[in-house]
Amino acid sequence: MSNTFGTLFRLTSFGESHGAAIGGVIDGCPAGIDIDLTFIQQELNRRRPGQSSLTTQRNEPDEVTFFSGIFEGKTTGTPIGFAIFNTNQHSDDYNHLKEVFRPSHADYTYQAKYGTRDYRGGGRASARETITRIVAGAIAKLALKEQAISIVAYTSQIGHLAVTLPYQALDLTQVETNSVRCPDNTVAKDMINYIEACKSEGDSIGGIVTCIIKGVPVGLGEPVFDKLQARLAYAMLSINAVKGFDYGSGFEGVSQKGSEVNDSFTLDNKQVTTKTNFSGGVQGGISNGEDIYFRTIFKPTATIAKSQQTIDIHKQTIELSAHGRHDPCVVPRAVPIIEAMAAMVIFDAYLLNKTQN
Amino acid sequence: MSNTFGTLFRLTSFGESHGAAIGGVIDGCPAGIDIDLTFIQQELNRRRPGQSSLTTQRNEPDEVTFFSGIFEGKTTGTPIGFAIFNTNQHSDDYNHLKEVFRPSHADYTYQAKYGTRDYRGGGRASARETITRIVAGAIAKLALKEQAISIVAYTSQIGHLAVTLPYQALDLTQVETNSVRCPDNTVAKDMINYIEACKSEGDSIGGIVTCIIKGVPVGLGEPVFDKLQARLAYAMLSINAVKGFDYGSGFEGVSQKGSEVNDSFTLDNKQVTTKTNFSGGVQGGISNGEDIYFRTIFKPTATIAKSQQTIDIHKQTIELSAHGRHDPCVVPRAVPIIEAMAAMVIFDAYLLNKTQN
Amino acid sequence: MSNTFGTLFRLTSFGESHGAAIGGVIDGCPAGIDIDLTFIQQELNRRRPGQSSLTTQRNEPDEVTFFSGIFEGKTTGTPIGFAIFNTNQHSDDYNHLKEVFRPSHADYTYQAKYGTRDYRGGGRASARETITRIVAGAIAKLALKEQAISIVAYTSQIGHLAVTLPYQALDLTQVETNSVRCPDNTVAKDMINYIEACKSEGDSIGGIVTCIIKGVPVGLGEPVFDKLQARLAYAMLSINAVKGFDYGSGFEGVSQKGSEVNDSFTLDNKQVTTKTNFSGGVQGGISNGEDIYFRTIFKPTATIAKSQQTIDIHKQTIELSAHGRHDPCVVPRAVPIIEAMAAMVIFDAYLLNKTQN
Amino acid sequence: MSNTFGTLFRLTSFGESHGAAIGGVIDGCPAGIDIDLTFIQQELNRRRPGQSSLTTQRNEPDEVTFFSGIFEGKTTGTPIGFAIFNTNQHSDDYNHLKEVFRPSHADYTYQAKYGTRDYRGGGRASARETITRIVAGAIAKLALKEQAISIVAYTSQIGHLAVTLPYQALDLTQVETNSVRCPDNTVAKDMINYIEACKSEGDSIGGIVTCIIKGVPVGLGEPVFDKLQARLAYAMLSINAVKGFDYGSGFEGVSQKGSEVNDSFTLDNKQVTTKTNFSGGVQGGISNGEDIYFRTIFKPTATIAKSQQTIDIHKQTIELSAHGRHDPCVVPRAVPIIEAMAAMVIFDAYLLNKTQN
Repeated sequence: MSNTFGTLFRLTSFGESHGAAIGGVIDGCPAGIDIDLTFIQQELNRRRPGQSSLTTQRNEPDEVTFFSGIFEGKTTGTPIGFAIFNTNQHSDDYNHLKEVFRPSHADYTYQAKYGTRDYRGGGRASARETITRIVAGAIAKLALKEQAISIVAYTSQIGHLAVTLPYQALDLTQVETNSVRCPDNTVAKDMINYIEACKSEGDSIGGIVTCIIKGVPVGLGEPVFDKLQARLAYAMLSINAVKGFDYGSGFEGVSQKGSEVNDSFTLDNKQVTTKTNFSGGVQGGISNGEDIYFRTIFKPTATIAKSQQTIDIHKQTIELSAHGRHDPCVVPRAVPIIEAMAAMVIFDAYLLNKTQN
Repeated sequence: MSNTFGTLFRLTSFGESHGAAIGGVIDGCPAGIDIDLTFIQQELNRRRPGQSSLTTQRNEPDEVTFFSGIFEGKTTGTPIGFAIFNTNQHSDDYNHLKEVFRPSHADYTYQAKYGTRDYRGGGRASARETITRIVAGAIAKLALKEQAISIVAYTSQIGHLAVTLPYQALDLTQVETNSVRCPDNTVAKDMINYIEACKSEGDSIGGIVTCIIKGVPVGLGEPVFDKLQARLAYAMLSINAVKGFDYGSGFEGVSQKGSEVNDSFTLDNKQVTTKTNFSGGVQGGISNGEDIYFRTIFKPTATIAKSQQTIDIHKQTIELSAHGRHDPCVVPRAVPIIEAMAAMVIFDAYLLNKTQN
Repeated sequence: MSNTFGTLFRLTSFGESHGAAIGGVIDGCPAGIDIDLTFIQQELNRRRPGQSSLTTQRNEPDEVTFFSGIFEGKTTGTPIGFAIFNTNQHSDDYNHLKEVFRPSHADYTYQAKYGTRDYRGGGRASARETITRIVAGAIAKLALKEQAISIVAYTSQIGHLAVTLPYQALDLTQVETNSVRCPDNTVAKDMINYIEACKSEGDSIGGIVTCIIKGVPVGLGEPVFDKLQARLAYAMLSINAVKGFDYGSGFEGVSQKGSEVNDSFTLDNKQVTTKTNFSGGVQGGISNGEDIYFRTIFKPTATIAKSQQTIDIHKQTIELSAHGRHDPCVVPRAVPIIEAMAAMVIFDAYLLNKTQN
Repeated sequence: MSNTFGTLFRLTSFGESHGAAIGGVIDGCPAGIDIDLTFIQQELNRRRPGQSSLTTQRNEPDEVTFFSGIFEGKTTGTPIGFAIFNTNQHSDDYNHLKEVFRPSHADYTYQAKYGTRDYRGGGRASARETITRIVAGAIAKLALKEQAISIVAYTSQIGHLAVTLPYQALDLTQVETNSVRCPDNTVAKDMINYIEACKSEGDSIGGIVTCIIKGVPVGLGEPVFDKLQARLAYAMLSINAVKGFDYGSGFEGVSQKGSEVNDSFTLDNKQVTTKTNFSGGVQGGISNGEDIYFRTIFKPTATIAKSQQTIDIHKQTIELSAHGRHDPCVVPRAVPIIEAMAAMVIFDAYLLNKTQN
């Protein structure tokens, strides 16, 4: 179970990598939101495989079909059903994995938990599942746009190669200008070279995505358990290959003192604001009107071409080198997924907050 | 809203720092669990204020009163209502804060969200709220003990002072032997000195808690959105002052390659196991039978004695030095809270897993 | 589990009949609602035992203690914790029932489901549990009053004695003028005599409560599964001793034709209204602005003084006559419980509707 | 929102009557259930339009397409996505209704709540939505069959024509032998004639469905709010055109005394059983092992050919006679829907109960 995300704005998703379709139902979306189908498809294109040399060569258009909930270009307040039909599965590529427990994959745990699994392309455990998050996130973005809330994420680290400037010093309009989605074009080139080097070694590499949410009004987040940062962390850690999350001063702030990272309140044009923003836009679990920013940490892709030892379903030791199509680094394609999850969290919090006053 | 945590094993909590009582309802606890009241009180004592020189001097026994759901020493399957009556509030200490927005506190966001707030001692935003988590967590621990699942957390970093050994190399029975809850007694001494130095400067400091869960069977965790690590991250980020979370290879793993951090499957005494455990005991969101371990990052306490500038409810600039009682570092007292939240997450996942096969 | 009622406005309750206290947590109540403690106590008094010759002689003041969530006379948006301490348990009266499965009681099913039970006074299965519904319902009523929504229920049938006039023809201000809570004082007298006759026979009797909700705006109710009538039915059937529910044309309407019970739309003072109201104020699961009215059916109290045969926990046949204190008819005391549940359903629907447009 | 039904076994549905498709996601279905596609299609055929002279002439095969969650003939524990593509919409038939508020329909309330609506064929408010309930219910039935739990419903009343025998005296294998789904073939003939007479008058009629669930083990149902009868009532009242629900002694039992309807416990072949079953198989909200039986009350179809006065979106009075295709009586096609909803409730309760002991 637990294929539903959100409290009021809810995505329920379904679908295996090599099944007939992947899709979902978005429930709780208010009526009257303008649905820009071109925008939704663009978001899907940012996630789709085959978009650059850095990604898997599974090449699918990933076109979404909407079944319901949209009428004459607007949401109707009824559930939005949709699917993306799988068209380029190459399931035969996975026959040799039918009985194998790939290292650091979900093969073994799914088999143990359910007593069965759809082994083709990773089945439900495939990151292809995130396609439904893009669709729901795109609709959340359209709704948030009406509230002047915007979200942008970018690759801030690949392996040891990190962007050193803070997000405020970067030109975030550059994110989509290179295949690694890093707004610092100099670092981006190094990152691209590095990912390609890993790929040619038959290896993979991890990285970090930074995400910034601007325009969030004061008051979003539901303490004590649904603090805004708790919902964001939950959302991010639900994405495949994510190993960590921090926001505001985060991991760096551990060695700083209260007097160094406390955010003093002050006035800016008669509005309450803070002089610094180590809080990352959230205090007591509630947005304070400043930028929300957080980082999501990705491990290297588990599927690698290099030979690895593992065991199979019969408990026999085997030698394995991946034949399937896979990304040497999941980070560039994860950028739109993180934005999508953030959009769902923020829009859900926005709706919840409407009920509290 | 959102004062309920958990899917099947659920804590609903209430209470302000200086109200009559803090308490909650635990619903979904199976019948027949032995309730060891002494153990529960010990857990509360590990969290209670005034236990050492490192903590706030608010000195309360924090004794729990159970109202229901326990009969003849065992749970009955009905909801367990409980409260801890507040006895040592010193609310007058907070009169000078009635109209102040303390830096990096929840004063401003609560006021903005709800149009009102109980300013005494932080009200609902006080970490005193976590007392209910200890009670529910203690009951979850008792239930997990029957399944041979155990949880231990410890302070692994204070400021820049870090335990350098991995948890496997530490003697975790030493955690409770010092006031900072660090199993490496040499590092512990430095940490204690450092916290006391911060305190005497009128300042505060952050740190990191590492938590290890042993004995978890294969199969816990509900993909795709309730992956075990997503529930753990959600639980940890819902705790006051937490800024980040990672598990397994975590933040460190970013600069490693797939071939370095993939966990090969092998057999140990005919049981499936992994040669390494960079996965942190979870694959595809489901426990794989290895140790689960994760880290939680804390910022320095926001309340400091040092003078700070901020504004009040009338938008006047004011100078503020904290008079109230507070911890110079929240980390030592956070150790049992993290264990409690982990216990709730794991027991909830255990119950959910019973329904899936 | 499942001791929580509501989606946004949520009551989580706890407590056994003869435990230390019965209470709960109300979460999701918006900030700023005026809390009239006198009104809440009056509502409790309407439900309390010992109020008339028709009710059990367990005589308790049933005073509520609030622990949190109310500050300076208003709700704060944080959870409202409360308890009613049990003071007049007479648990020894139940010793003879410790091992008995009383006919049509929950003794057997609780024992079978949980493997244990608190047999004293019915434990969790006692209707004393409804006291928490009164508290949460009273707060919902206070919130609804600010929206000009009012709820009134009355006894419309006891045994075969029915009020024959429709609710529109009754003076509903008379409901509280007699102990059976029937606004038709002539029928009320017959009902009272009949209940007393049943009591003196050592027997019990059932009845029907009619409830009317006025002032509900158009738009409350969340199709398709949370149709307003579905939430009302769910709420009513969760009350002890309830056997049925209908609304609008209800059971009577079965033998009528579409042309007889369709509600034509028309205009009243430029407002859309319906000429008749067989729909009971709900169409397609959404309130249409007309009065909502429904009926709730109660069986006779299961506890009777008359001798009955049954078995005990050792599967021995025994003869049983009730010694405990009990109501010969639950209906008069159920009137405020039904209003309370209706108030919770309507206020919850009101909050949900705020998120949809 | 609220297009999800169930706690652990959950159906999330989508779809408008004249949209591209109607479908849903079933989450929380355990792995390893045998999926008999022929059986599922048979269940759909029992609900499908055009099956007899008593139903609407919209004639669709209503074939279900499964997208996920089933592999090699069994459920995999992952979400089951499915759709039924609409093929015979005749949307033009509804152009004249675009701006009309049909009497006792959802046109007005949807328009008022959402500010928009898909007017074609009733949109989301169409009973065509129930097709997804049949699919999820059929899967629940397959799961329950493995536990020897069976469900059968039948038409027990149409207008004033009622089956007078109790269900125990009927041959329930006869239900599917006539188009009105009444096991008493003599009464069935009268019912059919009566419905056809109503139809030829341009009118419609209501009725009652009785449902019996056999083989339910002791212990299902989660007090206090999710009493088994409360979940059943909630499920039934969520179906279009339902006006009431009762179970066990129900409405009839109102005028009976405790001594007449109490169910004495006794032993049958060393098993605990009750001499009578006025409780309808549920005590204290928990199944007691006896047959569960309940009745669901339907109003006459709101759409009739007879001329009716109403108003339109411009608040103009208009005269209306239905041209669309509709059933003169919804009861015969409701029989499988009621079984489906009952199956979902019981299987959900079965899964929940596994977590409680």
